[in-house]
Amino acid sequence: MTTERQLNQPLGGNDMPRFGGIASMMRLPVATSPEGLDAAFIGIPLDIGTSHRPGARFGPRAIRAESALLRPYNMATGAAPFDALQVADLGDVPINTYSLDKSLATITAFYARVLAAGCVPLTLGGDHTIALPILRAIAAQHGPVALVHVDAHADVNDTMFGERIAHGTPFRRAVEEGLLQGDKVFQIGLRGTGYAADDFDWPRQQGFTVVPAHEVWWQSLSPLMARVRQTIGDVPCYLSFDIDGIDPAYAGGTGTPEIGGLTVPQALEIVRGCQGLNLVGADLVEVSPPYDPSGNTALLGANLLYEMLCALPGVPHR
Amino acid sequence: MTTERQLNQPLGGNDMPRFGGIASMMRLPVATSPEGLDAAFIGIPLDIGTSHRPGARFGPRAIRAESALLRPYNMATGAAPFDALQVADLGDVPINTYSLDKSLATITAFYARVLAAGCVPLTLGGDHTIALPILRAIAAQHGPVALVHVDAHADVNDTMFGERIAHGTPFRRAVEEGLLQGDKVFQIGLRGTGYAADDFDWPRQQGFTVVPAHEVWWQSLSPLMARVRQTIGDVPCYLSFDIDGIDPAYAGGTGTPEIGGLTVPQALEIVRGCQGLNLVGADLVEVSPPYDPSGNTALLGANLLYEMLCALPGVPHR
Amino acid sequence: MTTERQLNQPLGGNDMPRFGGIASMMRLPVATSPEGLDAAFIGIPLDIGTSHRPGARFGPRAIRAESALLRPYNMATGAAPFDALQVADLGDVPINTYSLDKSLATITAFYARVLAAGCVPLTLGGDHTIALPILRAIAAQHGPVALVHVDAHADVNDTMFGERIAHGTPFRRAVEEGLLQGDKVFQIGLRGTGYAADDFDWPRQQGFTVVPAHEVWWQSLSPLMARVRQTIGDVPCYLSFDIDGIDPAYAGGTGTPEIGGLTVPQALEIVRGCQGLNLVGADLVEVSPPYDPSGNTALLGANLLYEMLCALPGVPHR
Amino acid sequence: MTTERQLNQPLGGNDMPRFGGIASMMRLPVATSPEGLDAAFIGIPLDIGTSHRPGARFGPRAIRAESALLRPYNMATGAAPFDALQVADLGDVPINTYSLDKSLATITAFYARVLAAGCVPLTLGGDHTIALPILRAIAAQHGPVALVHVDAHADVNDTMFGERIAHGTPFRRAVEEGLLQGDKVFQIGLRGTGYAADDFDWPRQQGFTVVPAHEVWWQSLSPLMARVRQTIGDVPCYLSFDIDGIDPAYAGGTGTPEIGGLTVPQALEIVRGCQGLNLVGADLVEVSPPYDPSGNTALLGANLLYEMLCALPGVPHR
Amino acid sequence: MTTERQLNQPLGGNDMPRFGGIASMMRLPVATSPEGLDAAFIGIPLDIGTSHRPGARFGPRAIRAESALLRPYNMATGAAPFDALQVADLGDVPINTYSLDKSLATITAFYARVLAAGCVPLTLGGDHTIALPILRAIAAQHGPVALVHVDAHADVNDTMFGERIAHGTPFRRAVEEGLLQGDKVFQIGLRGTGYAADDFDWPRQQGFTVVPAHEVWWQSLSPLMARVRQTIGDVPCYLSFDIDGIDPAYAGGTGTPEIGGLTVPQALEIVRGCQGLNLVGADLVEVSPPYDPSGNTALLGANLLYEMLCALPGVPHR
Amino acid sequence: MTTERQLNQPLGGNDMPRFGGIASMMRLPVATSPEGLDAAFIGIPLDIGTSHRPGARFGPRAIRAESALLRPYNMATGAAPFDALQVADLGDVPINTYSLDKSLATITAFYARVLAAGCVPLTLGGDHTIALPILRAIAAQHGPVALVHVDAHADVNDTMFGERIAHGTPFRRAVEEGLLQGDKVFQIGLRGTGYAADDFDWPRQQGFTVVPAHEVWWQSLSPLMARVRQTIGDVPCYLSFDIDGIDPAYAGGTGTPEIGGLTVPQALEIVRGCQGLNLVGADLVEVSPPYDPSGNTALLGANLLYEMLCALPGVPHR
Repeated sequence: MTTERQLNQPLGGNDMPRFGGIASMMRLPVATSPEGLDAAFIGIPLDIGTSHRPGARFGPRAIRAESALLRPYNMATGAAPFDALQVADLGDVPINTYSLDKSLATITAFYARVLAAGCVPLTLGGDHTIALPILRAIAAQHGPVALVHVDAHADVNDTMFGERIAHGTPFRRAVEEGLLQGDKVFQIGLRGTGYAADDFDWPRQQGFTVVPAHEVWWQSLSPLMARVRQTIGDVPCYLSFDIDGIDPAYAGGTGTPEIGGLTVPQALEIVRGCQGLNLVGADLVEVSPPYDPSGNTALLGANLLYEMLCALPGVPHR
Repeated sequence: MTTERQLNQPLGGNDMPRFGGIASMMRLPVATSPEGLDAAFIGIPLDIGTSHRPGARFGPRAIRAESALLRPYNMATGAAPFDALQVADLGDVPINTYSLDKSLATITAFYARVLAAGCVPLTLGGDHTIALPILRAIAAQHGPVALVHVDAHADVNDTMFGERIAHGTPFRRAVEEGLLQGDKVFQIGLRGTGYAADDFDWPRQQGFTVVPAHEVWWQSLSPLMARVRQTIGDVPCYLSFDIDGIDPAYAGGTGTPEIGGLTVPQALEIVRGCQGLNLVGADLVEVSPPYDPSGNTALLGANLLYEMLCALPGVPHR
Repeated sequence: MTTERQLNQPLGGNDMPRFGGIASMMRLPVATSPEGLDAAFIGIPLDIGTSHRPGARFGPRAIRAESALLRPYNMATGAAPFDALQVADLGDVPINTYSLDKSLATITAFYARVLAAGCVPLTLGGDHTIALPILRAIAAQHGPVALVHVDAHADVNDTMFGERIAHGTPFRRAVEEGLLQGDKVFQIGLRGTGYAADDFDWPRQQGFTVVPAHEVWWQSLSPLMARVRQTIGDVPCYLSFDIDGIDPAYAGGTGTPEIGGLTVPQALEIVRGCQGLNLVGADLVEVSPPYDPSGNTALLGANLLYEMLCALPGVPHR
Repeated sequence: MTTERQLNQPLGGNDMPRFGGIASMMRLPVATSPEGLDAAFIGIPLDIGTSHRPGARFGPRAIRAESALLRPYNMATGAAPFDALQVADLGDVPINTYSLDKSLATITAFYARVLAAGCVPLTLGGDHTIALPILRAIAAQHGPVALVHVDAHADVNDTMFGERIAHGTPFRRAVEEGLLQGDKVFQIGLRGTGYAADDFDWPRQQGFTVVPAHEVWWQSLSPLMARVRQTIGDVPCYLSFDIDGIDPAYAGGTGTPEIGGLTVPQALEIVRGCQGLNLVGADLVEVSPPYDPSGNTALLGANLLYEMLCALPGVPHR
Repeated sequence: MTTERQLNQPLGGNDMPRFGGIASMMRLPVATSPEGLDAAFIGIPLDIGTSHRPGARFGPRAIRAESALLRPYNMATGAAPFDALQVADLGDVPINTYSLDKSLATITAFYARVLAAGCVPLTLGGDHTIALPILRAIAAQHGPVALVHVDAHADVNDTMFGERIAHGTPFRRAVEEGLLQGDKVFQIGLRGTGYAADDFDWPRQQGFTVVPAHEVWWQSLSPLMARVRQTIGDVPCYLSFDIDGIDPAYAGGTGTPEIGGLTVPQALEIVRGCQGLNLVGADLVEVSPPYDPSGNTALLGANLLYEMLCALPGVPHR
Repeated sequence: MTTERQLNQPLGGNDMPRFGGIASMMRLPVATSPEGLDAAFIGIPLDIGTSHRPGARFGPRAIRAESALLRPYNMATGAAPFDALQVADLGDVPINTYSLDKSLATITAFYARVLAAGCVPLTLGGDHTIALPILRAIAAQHGPVALVHVDAHADVNDTMFGERIAHGTPFRRAVEEGLLQGDKVFQIGLRGTGYAADDFDWPRQQGFTVVPAHEVWWQSLSPLMARVRQTIGDVPCYLSFDIDGIDPAYAGGTGTPEIGGLTVPQALEIVRGCQGLNLVGADLVEVSPPYDPSGNTALLGANLLYEMLCALPGVPHR
C-alpha cells in the first residue's frame, strides 16, 4: 500500500441520498478484479444447501440494499477501515443454482483468484454450505486455519438426508479435509434440539471449544474473546458467522431459527474481539430476505460485515 | 366402486371449525397407501429446480392449510366428487432437497406405485420440475399422453445454466423421452420476455398448440376448451397447471411472475373445460408461500386442485 | 333541511395533510347523536360471528384510516353528497365481544335511535352477522324491505355449528322474521363450494333473484341494475355489501375469500346502479385488516361506502 | 409403560424434509384416542375470549407448522422425552366458535377423557380463556392444584365487559371454584397498565406469589424457580404459559402485547425449572398468527411446548 | 450508430442466476456518462412531492431489483431493443431530499446533459413531481411536446396545500410554461373523487383528451391508441406513466391508489400502442416499495419500462 | 386545578371494546383548544426531514391506534395521571408536507399557543426535525432548557446534504439559537457508524453528557438517571425520545435503525427516571408504520408517551 493510491470510499449520504444510487455493498465501487484490493465484499447467492426455509439466495442483494445506511467510521471502536485499506464490492459468484457440486467448485475457484491477489474476502451469504468451498481456497493459500464460528448449530453433521454436502455439514468436511486446526476452533452460540444426545460431542473430540448459548446468557463475551485471541495467536484465522447464532428477536429473517440465542451486543463483542487476530477471511451467512419484511435482519448482517472489515489486520483506529 | 364402501368426506365445518383440525388437503383422511383410492392429493415439496424466487417447497403445506375453506359440492358445475370417488391425502413425497436427480427418481417411483393402484394423482407442487418425473410414471402406465399445460412459460428450454433438469425444461425432456403426443399438447397463457425471438417456435415444431395470453385477453376460453376436447378425444391426458399462468394480481405468491396473464375466470374455464377428457393426472405447481402473505395464492391453488378433482372421469354432476 | 344550516364537510387535504388528523370516516366531524343528520357512518367492530379468519373487528378502524384519501366529489357520477346532506361519523356501536346475543340487542337498539332521528345509517363492518340486527331496526321503522345483497355466499344457512346466529345465517333469519320482501331480494356474486347441491335453492324458493358470479363474468352489470331498479321500485331498500363478493385480487383482506368473484367495475356498477332506489340503509362488511397488509382492501371498502352515500336519495349530481 | 411397546418418534428430517409431511405437532403420529399415551399435544383453536387482537384460533395450526424444525433431544437439559414417553398429537378440540359457554363445556369434557386415560395434556392455544375449562377437568381428576402462571396479565378480572368468562378472568373463576391451591400459585411476568391501582392486590390476597416483570429485569430466574419447587413440592401442578409473558421483541405475534416483558432465556429457565414438579398438564396460549408474519412467535411457542414435554415427570435426562 | 460498436446486453440468467449480481436495471452495465448511449434508464429517488403514502424514493432500487427477471426479447411484439440500441443504466439523480426546489433544478440539469448526448431517458420514479423538471429539459431540447399521460389523477392542480410544486401539479405547470402541445395531450385512466365537480374541466380547456377509466372498462384500448398515433403524428412525444393509472389489484404498492382502474392488458396496449410515435422520453412513477411486500408492483413497473424501451423509434421487431 | 372540574378519562375497555371507537390517543376526548388542559397529546405528521426510510408521517395515526390497549394506571410506578391532570388529544399540527421551512413555523406557532395555555405538550412524531420548532416555542416560554435526549444519533450535524434543517440537525440548531443549557444536556443511546472520527466531539464541547449505548450494555440505567436528576435539578427540562435509541429488536419500525441499542427496560428506566424533573414537554419520534407490520413499534411508542405523562410534575402515585 502506498500513500499515492486513491482509496475507495463509500458513496456519502451528502453526495447521494442513502436511498439512491446503485446498491453495492456500502455503496462502494464495484470491481471486476481483485487485483489491487486489500479486502473485498463478495456475494454468494446460494441457498440450495438449506434444510428448511430457503431465501438466502437473496441475502447478498438485501444486505447490499440495507448497507446503504452505513457510514465509514466505527464510533464504538474508532476503526477507520477506508483510511488504509483498498476495499471494493466484487459482485457475486455465479453459482449453479441446480447443483451443489458445481457451485462448490465455482466458489473455490473464485476465491482462489481473490486470495492469490492478496485480497481478504468478506462474504455475503448465502447458506452456510458456502463455508466449505471458501475454506478449501483459504487452506490452499494459508494452510489449515483457526476458526471462530458463531452459530446456533454446530454444522458438523456427517450427512443430511444422506448427502455429504449441505448447510449442516461444512465443518465436518473441513475437519476431514484438514482445512482446520481443531484445537483453534471456537463454536459460539450453539443451542436447540438435536438428533442425538451426543450431537455436541464430535466437535469436542476434534478439539473444538464449544460455547453453548445458554452457558453465556447474561454475560459479556469479552472475556471469552480474550481467551480466543490467546489460544489462536497469530495463526491465520477464519471467521464464519451464521446470523442464526443471534436470537430471532434480532435476526428473525433466517432459515432455521433457534430460540434462546446470542444478543447483538454479544455478537458485536465477538466480531470486535477478533481484532488482533490474523483474519484471512470472514463470512456472514443465512440471511433470508423473504422472512425479513422490515429488512432489519439484512441490516444487521450488513453491520456485522462492516464490523468484520473493521477487525481486519491493518485497519487504523482513531 | 361398490355402493357398500364408505367414501371419505372432507371434515365439515359443523364438526370442527374450519380453522381447526389437522391440515390435510380439504381436511380429508390421510392415507398411507394408494390402495383402494380413486384419486389422491399428493404433495411434492421440491423447489430446488426454480430459477428465481424459491419457497414452493412450502407450497403443499400452505395449500393444505388454505384448503380448509373448501366444501364438498361445486356450486358452479354441480360436481359432487365425494359422492362417487374414494379420495384421500397421501401426504408428501420425501424428496431429497439437495439433489434434483435423486428427487426425480424418488418421485417417479412414488407415482408408479400410485398409478399401479389405479389411483389418479392430483399433485400439490412444488416447482414445475416435478412434471417430468410424474410424466415418466404416467407414460409408463398409459403410454404417451395428451397434455393441457397452463403456464406463463413454455418450460421447453434445452438447458438452464447448462443443466438439463430444472423448472424450465420439463416439457422439452418429456418430448425427447416420448412421454407426450405432440399434436395433442396445448400450452395456454404463455407470455413474457424471452432469450431469443424464436422461443415459442420449438413447441410449435413439436405440434403443440400455443395460446399466448395476450391473444386471449378479454375472451372466454370456453371455445378454446371445446377445441381442446375435440382434438384430444379419449387419449389419456395430463393437466399441468403452473399458477403463474394466472396474472400476479390473483396469484402473486409465485416464483417467476409475469404480467399480463390469464384471469381466474379463464383459469376456471380451462379446468372445468377439461371435464370430458380422459384425465389421468393433474398438478398445480409454483405456489410460493413466502411471497403470499395473505395466503390467497395458496387458496387459489387449493380451489384449482379441487376443480381438477371435479373434472375427473366418473364424477357425478347434480 | 334548511339552507341555513352548515353542512359538514370532509376535512380537506389543503387544510390538513391526508395522513394527519383524527381518523374519522372521510375525516368528517364525529357526532355523538344522530339528531340533525341525514346520513351517518357507523362502525360495528364485531367479528365473533365469523366462521374462519377473524379480524373484521378492526374493519371500522382501518376503513376510517384509509378513507382519508377520499375527496368530496364523485367524478364518475357527478354526485355531490356534501352539498345537500348533513353527514357525520357516529363512531362505533359498543358491542359485547364475548356474546353474539347481547351484541345483536345492542346493535338493534342503537340503530332504532339512529333511524328514529331520520338518519340513514351507512355501516362499516364487522362481519356479516350485523346485517340481522340492523335489518330488525330497519324493518321496525320501514316495514319489510327490498334487499340488494352482494356477496360470495348466500348467508342463508339455517345454522352454523348448530347456532342460529352467525355470519352465514342473517338472511335466513331475516326471512323468517318477516324483515324482507322476498321477491325484491337480489343476491349478486354468489359462488364457491357448498355443503349440498341445493345450497342455492332455498333463496330461490323465497323469491330471491340469485346471480352467481360465473354467470356474469365478462359482463357489465348495468343491465342487471336496471332490472333491479324496475323490480324494487319505490319500496324501501337496504343494500348489504360483503366485500368478499368482489374477487380476492381486489379485496384479499377478508375472512372467507372465494375465487372467481366480481370485479371492482362490476361492484361500482352495482352501487352506482342503486341510485334511484329508496335506500334506507347500507353496509359494507367483512374487511379484515390483519389480512390486508397494504390497506388496499380497507381503501376499497371506504370507497364503496362513499359510493353508497352518493347513491342515497336527495344527493344532487353535477 | 413396558419396554416392549413401540414409542412414537417425531418424523425425522432425514426421512422427510422438514418442510414436508403432514403438519402435526413435531410431526408426531396423529392419534384419535388418548388411550396408551403418556402425554399428548392438543390444540384448542378458540379466540372469541380475547379482548383485543384476534387470531389465536390459528395458533394450533401455526405452532404445528413451525414445530417441524424440532428434533427429539434437548441439548441444553439432556432431556430425551421420546426415549420413555408415548406421545402423540391428539388434534384439536371441536370448539363452538360462536359460544364461549358451549366451548367451555366441550373442552372440559374432552380433557376429562384425556386425563382419565392417564395422559398428560399439553395444550396449544387458543386464547387464555381455555385455562379455565382445562383446570376444571384437571381439578376433577387431581383436586385443587398448584399453578405456575407466566403472563403479562394476572387474568383475575371479575368480569370483562360484564362477562364472567373471557381471557382475562380464568384464574379468578378458578379460585372461586376451588380449583387452585392459592398459596401454591406463582404469577410471573405481570406488568402493564391497569384499571385500578389495586389490580395486583386480589391475587396477593389469595396467597398468590406475584412476580412483576420489572422486578426481575436483568436477572436469572433460576433462584425463583428453586423457590417455586420448594413451595409446591409434590402437589399436582399445572403450568399455564401465556406467550405475552415474554417481551414482544421475541413474541410479537400475540393479541394483547405489553412492553417490558420477560426474555426468552428467562422463559426457558421457568419451564426448565419446572422439572421436578409434579406437572399434570401445561398450556401455551395466545399465539396469534395473523400478527406473526415470520412465524417466529409460533416457533417460540412450539419450542416452549417441547420444553414442557421435557419437564414432565418420567422423562430421562442424558 | 455503427455496426461495429458492441451493444450492451442484459446479464443473462445462464451467466449469473437471476437473483445474483449487482442490481442494475435489467442487469445492464452501469454507465457514468450518457455519451454513446441511445437510451438510458435513470432513477429519480424523490418522494417529498407526494401528498399521502411516501416510499417512492425506494422505487428505483426496487424496480431495478425486480427487473432481474426480464429477458431481452419481447415475445408479444417481437421487439428486440438490444439488437439495435446502446442502452445502459445511468444510476440515480442525486436529488436533495429536503428541498423540492433544489431537486427540480438538479433533475433538469441532469436531463439536459442526457438529452444533449442524444440519449433517450427512461425514468424510474420517484413521485410524479419529477415529470415537470424532465419536461423542462425535454422542451428545451425538442420544443413543446405531445404527451401520453396514464394516471388515476389529472395532476393539474393549481396548488397543493398552497404550493405550486407537488406531485399533483406538474402538468398544470407544464402547460403554463409552454412545455406541452395541449391538443396533443392524452390523459388516460383518470378517476376517483375530486375537490370540485369541475376537476376534469381544466385539462379539457387546454385541449387535452381525457379518457376516464370508467369509460373504457371492458374495452381494448387499441382503438384509442390508433387515434393517439393519428393525432400526435411525428411530433416529439413524451410518455408519462403513473402506475396508479392501473388498478390497485395489479399495482397496490403506490402512494395514492384509486379503485376502478385500468387493467394490465390495457396498460400494455397503451405502451405498445406508442410504437410509431416519436418518443423522446418516458417515465414510470409512483411505485412505493414499502406498500409492495411481494415486490410485484415493482416488477410491473420494471416490465412497463422495458415495454417503453421496446416502443422507442429504431427498435427492430422480429 | 379544583376538585370540581371533571377530569377526562380514557374510554374504558368495558365501555367500548378496545378495538372500537375513534382512535384518539388512549381514546381520550379530542380537544380543539389547549385551554383548561394540564397536558395534551399532539401529533406532528411530518417526515420530509428524514434522510432514509420515510413513513413517520403516519406515526401519530399508528400510535393513536395502538394506544387503545392502554389502561389508566401505571402498575409499575403507581402513577395515576388521570386522577389529577386534565389531559386530552389535541389532534395534529397541520404541517405543510412540501416545505420544511413552512412546517417549522407552523409547529412553533402551534406550540406557543399550547404553552401559553399552561398545557404541557406530549408530542407524537413525526421525524426528529420537529424537536427544533418545539424547542423554539419551549424556550420562548421557559428560557433555555435542560434536555434528556434518547437516540441512536446525536442529531447535531451542521448540515445534511447542505441543508441546515433536517432530522439530523435539530440539536445543533438548538444550541446555536440558545435554546438549551449545554451542561444540562444528556444524550443517551448514541451508537452506529459516523462520517468522521470526531462525530461525538462537538456535543461534548457544548457540555453535553454523552452516553453511548455500548457503554451501558448489561446495565440498569437507574444510577444514570439519579445523576441526571441531580445535575438538572429544577431547571425546566425537555425530554426528546427518538425510538431508534432502542434496539431494532424492540423497535424495528423506524427510519434509520442502528444495531446494538438500548433495551426497553432501559428505556423505561430513563422515562420513569425523569419523574422529579421539571418536565415542560416531551416527544416520541421516528415511529415509521410502513416498516412496522405488527404495529408493535407504534405500541411501544404509545406506552412510552403514557410513561412520559406519568412522569410529569403533579401526577400522584398510589
